[in-house]
Amino acid sequence: MLSSAARSIASLKSRCAYAPYLSKVCKPEDTVKFFKDGMNVGWSGFTPVGDAKVVPIALSEYVEKNHLQGKLRFNLFCGGSTGSKNEDRWAKNNMISRRYPYQSGKNHRKLINKGISLMADKHISMFPQDLFYGFYTKSRGGGLDIAIIEATEILEDGSLVLGASVGSTTEISQIADKIIIELNTAIPSFKGCHDIVYGCKPPYKPLNITSPGSRIGEISIKIDPSKVIAVVESNLSFPGLPIAGPDATATAIAGHIVDFFQNEVKQGRLPENLYPLQSGVGNIANAVLHGLNNSPFNNLAVYTEVLQDAMLPMLDTGKLTFASASALTLAQYDKLYQNFDFYKDKFILRPQAITNAPEVVRRLGVIGMNTPVEVDMYGHANSTHINGTQMINGIGGSNDFERNGYLSIMHCPSARKTKKDPTGISCILPMCTHIDQTEHDLDVIVTEQGLADLRGLAPVERARLMIEKAAHPSYKDQLREYLNMAIKETQSKGAGHEPQILEKVFKMHENLATKGTMHLDSW
Amino acid sequence: MLSSAARSIASLKSRCAYAPYLSKVCKPEDTVKFFKDGMNVGWSGFTPVGDAKVVPIALSEYVEKNHLQGKLRFNLFCGGSTGSKNEDRWAKNNMISRRYPYQSGKNHRKLINKGISLMADKHISMFPQDLFYGFYTKSRGGGLDIAIIEATEILEDGSLVLGASVGSTTEISQIADKIIIELNTAIPSFKGCHDIVYGCKPPYKPLNITSPGSRIGEISIKIDPSKVIAVVESNLSFPGLPIAGPDATATAIAGHIVDFFQNEVKQGRLPENLYPLQSGVGNIANAVLHGLNNSPFNNLAVYTEVLQDAMLPMLDTGKLTFASASALTLAQYDKLYQNFDFYKDKFILRPQAITNAPEVVRRLGVIGMNTPVEVDMYGHANSTHINGTQMINGIGGSNDFERNGYLSIMHCPSARKTKKDPTGISCILPMCTHIDQTEHDLDVIVTEQGLADLRGLAPVERARLMIEKAAHPSYKDQLREYLNMAIKETQSKGAGHEPQILEKVFKMHENLATKGTMHLDSW
Repeated sequence: MLSSAARSIASLKSRCAYAPYLSKVCKPEDTVKFFKDGMNVGWSGFTPVGDAKVVPIALSEYVEKNHLQGKLRFNLFCGGSTGSKNEDRWAKNNMISRRYPYQSGKNHRKLINKGISLMADKHISMFPQDLFYGFYTKSRGGGLDIAIIEATEILEDGSLVLGASVGSTTEISQIADKIIIELNTAIPSFKGCHDIVYGCKPPYKPLNITSPGSRIGEISIKIDPSKVIAVVESNLSFPGLPIAGPDATATAIAGHIVDFFQNEVKQGRLPENLYPLQSGVGNIANAVLHGLNNSPFNNLAVYTEVLQDAMLPMLDTGKLTFASASALTLAQYDKLYQNFDFYKDKFILRPQAITNAPEVVRRLGVIGMNTPVEVDMYGHANSTHINGTQMINGIGGSNDFERNGYLSIMHCPSARKTKKDPTGISCILPMCTHIDQTEHDLDVIVTEQGLADLRGLAPVERARLMIEKAAHPSYKDQLREYLNMAIKETQSKGAGHEPQILEKVFKMHENLATKGTMHLDSW
Repeated sequence: MLSSAARSIASLKSRCAYAPYLSKVCKPEDTVKFFKDGMNVGWSGFTPVGDAKVVPIALSEYVEKNHLQGKLRFNLFCGGSTGSKNEDRWAKNNMISRRYPYQSGKNHRKLINKGISLMADKHISMFPQDLFYGFYTKSRGGGLDIAIIEATEILEDGSLVLGASVGSTTEISQIADKIIIELNTAIPSFKGCHDIVYGCKPPYKPLNITSPGSRIGEISIKIDPSKVIAVVESNLSFPGLPIAGPDATATAIAGHIVDFFQNEVKQGRLPENLYPLQSGVGNIANAVLHGLNNSPFNNLAVYTEVLQDAMLPMLDTGKLTFASASALTLAQYDKLYQNFDFYKDKFILRPQAITNAPEVVRRLGVIGMNTPVEVDMYGHANSTHINGTQMINGIGGSNDFERNGYLSIMHCPSARKTKKDPTGISCILPMCTHIDQTEHDLDVIVTEQGLADLRGLAPVERARLMIEKAAHPSYKDQLREYLNMAIKETQSKGAGHEPQILEKVFKMHENLATKGTMHLDSW
């Protein structure tokens, strides 16, 4: 009878063309011994796919079984969000002392906002560079202790073919002292789908990407085989996150954006097939894609960080000709895998340092579209912190695209409901409580009420247009009153380029906290 | 006897190798007829050199003589600041209805903060692109009515050799319907000093700059000769702005930065000759350069927007090997012009779209160093608005470098004086009243008190370090008290990733307004 290890080797052999690794094959629980409290650990994965799974889960089981909650904690580095069954279970077990540069887990978010787990969010394009430069792990002279990398195939030279994402996996593999490979046999090999570019110190070469389909790198990640301490089989494929269909608000926003694009084409400021699109995740982003799929635009291209469900039908019809991303983030992977040969030629997966590189975003003229928490009258946006203090997920790649794109668009509902008031939260405010995108970055703000094209306008003009076009009708008078009051008070003193009254500037937020609505009795 | 025009032609001939322009030679006052109220006018120039002079002055004289103040107003587009004798005289005569993307005039600043003159500041790298794309002048379908360009020589093909700056002159020349050339014979021809790259629609080619000295463009700006409506001689050369010598605060800041660099080299995070330096303008920036000139570092290079006085002695000694900039902004130009052949090979002047291009800044690993108005504990900075409402000059290029550099450093005094209190304004605050650089951009904050290296730290860790290292001693307890209060209040509610108490967050600013100091009696 075959031993367990031998059985594992048999099933792995078809995906592993580098024989020396076969001697490293072991079970996930055998890797627990490599991990010590306080280690710096890197995971493959991005938003949340291609992430390390069976080894993190084995570690959670070990902690739970031995009641080691809070006693085996790691500094966790992973390019984007991961799954609830791996990272958020670590959080539940208080196994994460630090996390960079993003997270999306319910338990993890709680720990972060209680100050138990430390986190810092960073531009998605910058994180892998700063990690590679040694900035995050200065106290150990840079680098990581262990990387856990999910691969879908291992090539003859021991290099790794990743799965449905790249994220920061390249840089994490480069700087880790030791590597554990999770070879995933439950999903197809993604050989040929990636464009791997390595981290390097400045000055680096120009990134010679001149269209979304340009290829500048390799198809697998070359690693030093002597770093590999274990190879485990994984047959886990987490289900995708369900996406709600577009509601009336999202559909109205999408309509305004399509109209805007049509006018820009008419005015000669956009070509007929637009410029490459970037689209954040979520309900509104999906509605915008649906809107574009039903629009007269053709031969569209995508240069984004996440390829989403709504893009598949656009690839089917040829409306979308090509997509460059760092991850395939789908609600259902069945359709992709069943038609893998069809889709394979229509997308490419790159490191997040490349998908989000200011250099490429700007050169290609990418149109950035993302959803903030709140925006202010003058065109600043808060994408991360409720009331300026409570972290949601992190800035992600939004400002890579908004800061550098040809057109920088942000979209959100004009108001959100509270328990007390169906429009208790205005998303258009005097001042944002936290600023992630500045007035110097953004061009266009869209809500279901309308589209405010802020290009070329001075602050007071922007504020008037924002109130007129984007604010919820129930807040228009209130915001106008504030603006007029602020203009009067500051310009009379010769101090009113961007009029604000500091003692009133967060009054709407304070009213929400005490009375459950931003609708004020008076200013 | 020669006519005035003939005399002018005689003196211009040595600088103008394109004969057809000689028929366009006229006096500055003869150009007044080309200007109508409401026109969109572009000027050459940047920070403040190479700017249009004799034509704007002739227009001012015309307005003053004919009492047309407020009746002949223009939308003025110029890449950076200009001089007090041209732009600020326009402002004094109420001749500027709009200004993008920066200004530095005393009269102009007043008008802007009274709401009489409209302005919007924009990242220096983005402004010429958005102007070229037609975003600023959408209502006329893009473009400009007239460009006034200062040149130091005209070549055989009618192309223009600029002077001591490039700024946005390339794009302004490209999109203007008509061009007036001010041929400046008072300063040397800068032929060979420029690297001209033209504005274009996406996708554009990679900017193949791989070291500060890389040359990718042409030495002169090609224009359509049929656009040229006048050529006037200029022999004006405005004196440079005097720079105060480094005081104790600036010297202390410079010392901290040099120490930091030495440690980064030791740790292997910087090469021995550092990476190319960018340095903002002003007293502190000059002190930092002086500090580097007296440091053990050698073979330094500069990739910046403004080449400053303190760099000349560094070029003399070879401490600095090469400087790339968009302008030579000196207090005294005599030394430069007297040794022009020596300096000519050691610098290159490029369009601001190139000097400040995120693509190049990031590739070269530029070290960005700029001075904000105020910073907050969490690492956001305000570079533009006093009290969040009063415009100083504009964001300039600070965030092109801070957002994209290898190391993003901001430096300021820990406190400034008020009439009532020698340290009445703390530059380290709970929250900035306006945010131009975000926590996601900045790595290091330095004051004369010390250097806070924020890399890899979570928000609360950053705040503690900022208070410990950078705050003025007289504010440390006050800031600590706020931080501890904010942590307690927000983390107990599970909302304290970046603890803030909105109703107290600007209390120090409010105290300053009412009591003349940020030193509080109590929170």
